[in-house]
Amino acid sequence: MSDYDIRGEISYRKSRIDRILKDMLPVPQGYASTVIEAMNYSVEAGGKRLRPMLMSECYHLFADEGTDYVPEETLRSYMGAIECIHTYSLVHDDLPAMDNDMLRRGMPTTHAKYGEAIAILAGDGLLNYAMELVSRAVASGSAEDMPRLARAQRLIFDRSGIYGMIGGQCADVEAEDGKGTLDADLLGYIHRNKTAALIIASMLSGAILGGADEDDQGVVALIAMRLGVAFQIRDDILDIEGSEDTLGKPIGSDEKNDKLTYVAVHGMEKARQDVETMTAEAHDLLEHLPGDKTFLHELFDELVTREN
Amino acid sequence: MSDYDIRGEISYRKSRIDRILKDMLPVPQGYASTVIEAMNYSVEAGGKRLRPMLMSECYHLFADEGTDYVPEETLRSYMGAIECIHTYSLVHDDLPAMDNDMLRRGMPTTHAKYGEAIAILAGDGLLNYAMELVSRAVASGSAEDMPRLARAQRLIFDRSGIYGMIGGQCADVEAEDGKGTLDADLLGYIHRNKTAALIIASMLSGAILGGADEDDQGVVALIAMRLGVAFQIRDDILDIEGSEDTLGKPIGSDEKNDKLTYVAVHGMEKARQDVETMTAEAHDLLEHLPGDKTFLHELFDELVTREN
Repeated sequence: MSDYDIRGEISYRKSRIDRILKDMLPVPQGYASTVIEAMNYSVEAGGKRLRPMLMSECYHLFADEGTDYVPEETLRSYMGAIECIHTYSLVHDDLPAMDNDMLRRGMPTTHAKYGEAIAILAGDGLLNYAMELVSRAVASGSAEDMPRLARAQRLIFDRSGIYGMIGGQCADVEAEDGKGTLDADLLGYIHRNKTAALIIASMLSGAILGGADEDDQGVVALIAMRLGVAFQIRDDILDIEGSEDTLGKPIGSDEKNDKLTYVAVHGMEKARQDVETMTAEAHDLLEHLPGDKTFLHELFDELVTREN
Repeated sequence: MSDYDIRGEISYRKSRIDRILKDMLPVPQGYASTVIEAMNYSVEAGGKRLRPMLMSECYHLFADEGTDYVPEETLRSYMGAIECIHTYSLVHDDLPAMDNDMLRRGMPTTHAKYGEAIAILAGDGLLNYAMELVSRAVASGSAEDMPRLARAQRLIFDRSGIYGMIGGQCADVEAEDGKGTLDADLLGYIHRNKTAALIIASMLSGAILGGADEDDQGVVALIAMRLGVAFQIRDDILDIEGSEDTLGKPIGSDEKNDKLTYVAVHGMEKARQDVETMTAEAHDLLEHLPGDKTFLHELFDELVTREN
């Protein structure tokens, strides 16, 4: 254990991100107020804010060392957008036709609170709002910044769609229907796309906005893939070993839903081992990047040993 | 009746757009193939292609007279995007938790064919794909075109979200719950947002991409609002007077669903009259714009007298 207070640092950064999100979310008003309330509820229900946190850290690695970065105000729009995308995917994933979860982080899921129709629209509204935030940032960017803003935008929506997160969701849904198929290829595809794709989008867009050159962008992508997959394997482990209190949702819910998990395919021992290997590789790769990497090193360890 | 063969012209333009969409849609492959198939099915199930058609016509009004336009290939990405947005809204609108429709244009709706989970993901995938198409177009635009591409992008996603289409959908869902409330203000909000907002986005982004100046953009927005609302009132009229054969869905389904319609609030006579007035205003305003407006004039008349 180092003296570094990683939990305190995470909590401080999380509270800053919570405030950024609060300022950025639409204000419920007029005839659309219910769907806007449901969007706000879904985002404010909490979560680790991991994706905007990683984006911001990767931005600062480069921005703090160089001169070739976009304004922090612009970064904040992208941070808000990535959290909206992540949140919408949870809202739709919780729906009765998908995982049918009534609780998330100890609170009623969006459809449990607002009904299915509004939850569908709130998810749509959040994905669209992500695009509104980024579109406004691109449209109001300086002529110098605009190409990089457009590149970061493209990267995010490439990774959140059928060639990324939604592709992973589709495979996950179908894996449940083919109950009991222990297909390692399919599992790898799901982990790389359902979870890691958005982590890659977060870290890589942060690096691009912070002024990373192409070589460094490549290193960031390699780190993000390892971190994203290790994070998801830890999730699979926690679903078996965690407690309902710390998780905020019923344990064993993956088994209940016949989810294809890393533990089911590879066993608990290899699951733990692979998390360790991937995390070690992420640490090694991180050393190739500029800037103060203390927080990121500590965050990686915290994420892959977390209890919820 | 003029000698102009408007139905032939519409059909010709529609077939060109169908081909553009076919070239643009993702190819089903790998573990994500089911959701990609469902996306393709939803788009290829047909429809009038009204929104990309209006976008293309408005682009050409200005591009054919001036020099200040983006390449047609770029326009096509935006045309594809607006049809993806329109289609996703139908896929989600048809879901059991929303309108619960099993047929659209005489074919099984997406959830009827692929199940609810894949239909939710296909809708998400289409909205995200719209962003992918536009993001790629912006990112690969010339330095000269990029600000205008970003402005058109922003306009589209502003109008498709909670301050436009999704806002209208939310109000529509709640109007059904408050069965029988004949609230003219609420109805106006729903029509302006649920339907007209995307028509405005289509026409106005086409004009921007074609090089329209700010004054002309203002005129286009006024036309689009009138056309969009008249189009929706005609829809309400058809739900009562149309035949199931030409509509491709059960007639009276709005009444069945306790929909707040223009006919229910204002009566059939005023509904017909207002369609006529708004269409006449759209024609008058159109005369203020440059270029060959024959097709648009004829299209307006066709849309507000259509039988399906």
